[in-house]
Amino acid sequence: VLAGINFFPTVSPAEKPAVQFFDECLELSVLADRLGYHSVKIVEHYFYPYGGYSPDPVTFLAAVATRTERVRLVTGANVPAFNHPIKLAGQLAMLDNICHGRLDVGFARAFLPGEFEAFEISMDSSRARHQEGIAAILRLWQEEEVVWDGTFHRFGPVTMLPRVYQQPTPPVFIAATSTPESFVWAGSQGFNLMFIPFTSTNEKVAELLALYRGARLAAGYAPGSERIQMGIHCFVDDDGDRARREAAEYYSDYVEKMVHTWEAYMTARPEQYAGYADMIAGMRKKSLATLEENAQVYVGTPGQVREQVAATFEVFGAVEPSMQINFAAMPFADARRTMELFAAEVMPAFPEPSAA
Amino acid sequence: VLAGINFFPTVSPAEKPAVQFFDECLELSVLADRLGYHSVKIVEHYFYPYGGYSPDPVTFLAAVATRTERVRLVTGANVPAFNHPIKLAGQLAMLDNICHGRLDVGFARAFLPGEFEAFEISMDSSRARHQEGIAAILRLWQEEEVVWDGTFHRFGPVTMLPRVYQQPTPPVFIAATSTPESFVWAGSQGFNLMFIPFTSTNEKVAELLALYRGARLAAGYAPGSERIQMGIHCFVDDDGDRARREAAEYYSDYVEKMVHTWEAYMTARPEQYAGYADMIAGMRKKSLATLEENAQVYVGTPGQVREQVAATFEVFGAVEPSMQINFAAMPFADARRTMELFAAEVMPAFPEPSAA
Ligand SMILES: [Ca+2]
Ligand SMILES: [Ca+2]
Ligand SMILES: [Ca+2]
Ligand SMILES: [Ca+2]
Ligand SMILES: [Ca+2]
Ligand SMILES: [Ca+2]
Repeated sequence: VLAGINFFPTVSPAEKPAVQFFDECLELSVLADRLGYHSVKIVEHYFYPYGGYSPDPVTFLAAVATRTERVRLVTGANVPAFNHPIKLAGQLAMLDNICHGRLDVGFARAFLPGEFEAFEISMDSSRARHQEGIAAILRLWQEEEVVWDGTFHRFGPVTMLPRVYQQPTPPVFIAATSTPESFVWAGSQGFNLMFIPFTSTNEKVAELLALYRGARLAAGYAPGSERIQMGIHCFVDDDGDRARREAAEYYSDYVEKMVHTWEAYMTARPEQYAGYADMIAGMRKKSLATLEENAQVYVGTPGQVREQVAATFEVFGAVEPSMQINFAAMPFADARRTMELFAAEVMPAFPEPSAA
Repeated sequence: VLAGINFFPTVSPAEKPAVQFFDECLELSVLADRLGYHSVKIVEHYFYPYGGYSPDPVTFLAAVATRTERVRLVTGANVPAFNHPIKLAGQLAMLDNICHGRLDVGFARAFLPGEFEAFEISMDSSRARHQEGIAAILRLWQEEEVVWDGTFHRFGPVTMLPRVYQQPTPPVFIAATSTPESFVWAGSQGFNLMFIPFTSTNEKVAELLALYRGARLAAGYAPGSERIQMGIHCFVDDDGDRARREAAEYYSDYVEKMVHTWEAYMTARPEQYAGYADMIAGMRKKSLATLEENAQVYVGTPGQVREQVAATFEVFGAVEPSMQINFAAMPFADARRTMELFAAEVMPAFPEPSAA
């Protein structure tokens, strides 16, 4: 199984200072590299104890790059709407060279009104900015003397340096949550996908994945050539009751922070994000136990988690679990234990098909 | 002597691929950490084999952070005019935590017309953007619930995460080259300074440094509390003739790339940058031998370089040499030899005064 580790910081300075949080994440990344995990991922968010410790995913991943040898480094995700394409293309190209081609790039449209407000970007323009930014970055990576004449940016001719290490470009993923249009667009462009099941129902998610896979096929991309990363919380312990008890505590704090951050913004409710109000209402109703009933979390003993992993593959098809193993102010020892047990007792049950 | 290493990439992909350049710089940074150098610095530039390998200094320094234990990490420099203050404040704060408070932050106004054009920023606004960006970043680091109502940015109330590790802020340096107003402003704000002597005459530079120190004193900052980093090329070899021959070759290529980059833009010559045309004309006339006559380079045997270091202290006062030791497509072995000889045979001649 191509399981990865997904750092989505949900701590405040009072709970865990940033210096400690990043020290722990770096140690867990080194462990991921050693234990055979496929990837390490971190998010881009601002201001709140919901992702806010990581306003720049590349900065953290560059720090991981020189402590690791084989694990892939995943931006999950960069937000083109908040970053100039020249800056983001260059920064990612530096990282792609520094890590010798281990970079996977995720792009997200962003959804928190307060972030758009701070950057003085209209939420109504988010989809257009997202798509223009990605297109501009792909051209800056692949072509020289690029002239860009878009709606939001005009530049050129310029030749971006450094050139990317992976040719023609690093793998590109689109982070999509609940908007069907986003899944169709990602598929039609032949991009890879990042999704999270736990903010929705499996039926809804399966429909969205079918839209994505269908659009990708319709655009002529080979079936099975897509990579799909699934964000999922994971807590493993030899004592399954302890795993559930502890995970429930941190998961409940995680949801509280997520809902609080969203609500802080809920005076504005732009049309393009209509689905988000429903999603928040849905999240409030879901406990960890609800997630477990619906194959939307990995929690329990290694044996139980093996069954849960198999269940997600049954529901969602061939996906790469991208596991949040240190959510909320969880102690380092718990996150490390999850990683060790998953690597030792879950991964071997899902061997990768050997290369053709 | 608080000598640092200064990576200013002046190579093209055909001469040295970025993957090799960064591998070498990382190895040299580890060496700097081990040999007692005070700092490692890298620049922000775009598009050309004149700095263009480093569009984002923080990305490289984050990679250095986790391979080193004590050396300081210096952005030399970030350009607030090209980066949103929220993004830059957050990115630098992440690095300050990841490196446990070893970050020194340099800010520059930028001067290449083609960079301003690509970012669709008017050069006439560069000083105002520079100053507003720095002020906004300092407030985001020091205060919570910041409301910013400036000429170029309006946001808030927002609380930036993560909080900076160094309190109240990481040390701030202003990069200034030839505009007296820049030196006066940096001093009046109590900032530290980065300057380069080799684009000017020592008389001119001494005047500018006097303006800086005078403005700093007049604003009430204690004499001697400033830190001044001096960019300077350095090539040391036990064979002094070889040092001069090789350094002259790479220095001449370095100047050619600098002049070529500036000339590529010389259709536009905005008023605020009037001094730059003179500077370029001056650079064309200067060979490495001219620099050596004027105490504007460190080149030769360790014994000769000891005298040159003493000469720069005599001319410029207490400064921190920030040494370019791998300019142009210089082989790694030459850069490493310079660092080893300087550490072993030059540094010990200039012991740091013990703390009071
Ligand atoms: Ca390596
Ligand atoms: Ca142009
Ligand atoms: Ca507990
Ligand atoms: Ca350390
Ligand atoms: Ca506001
Ligand atoms: Ca040579």
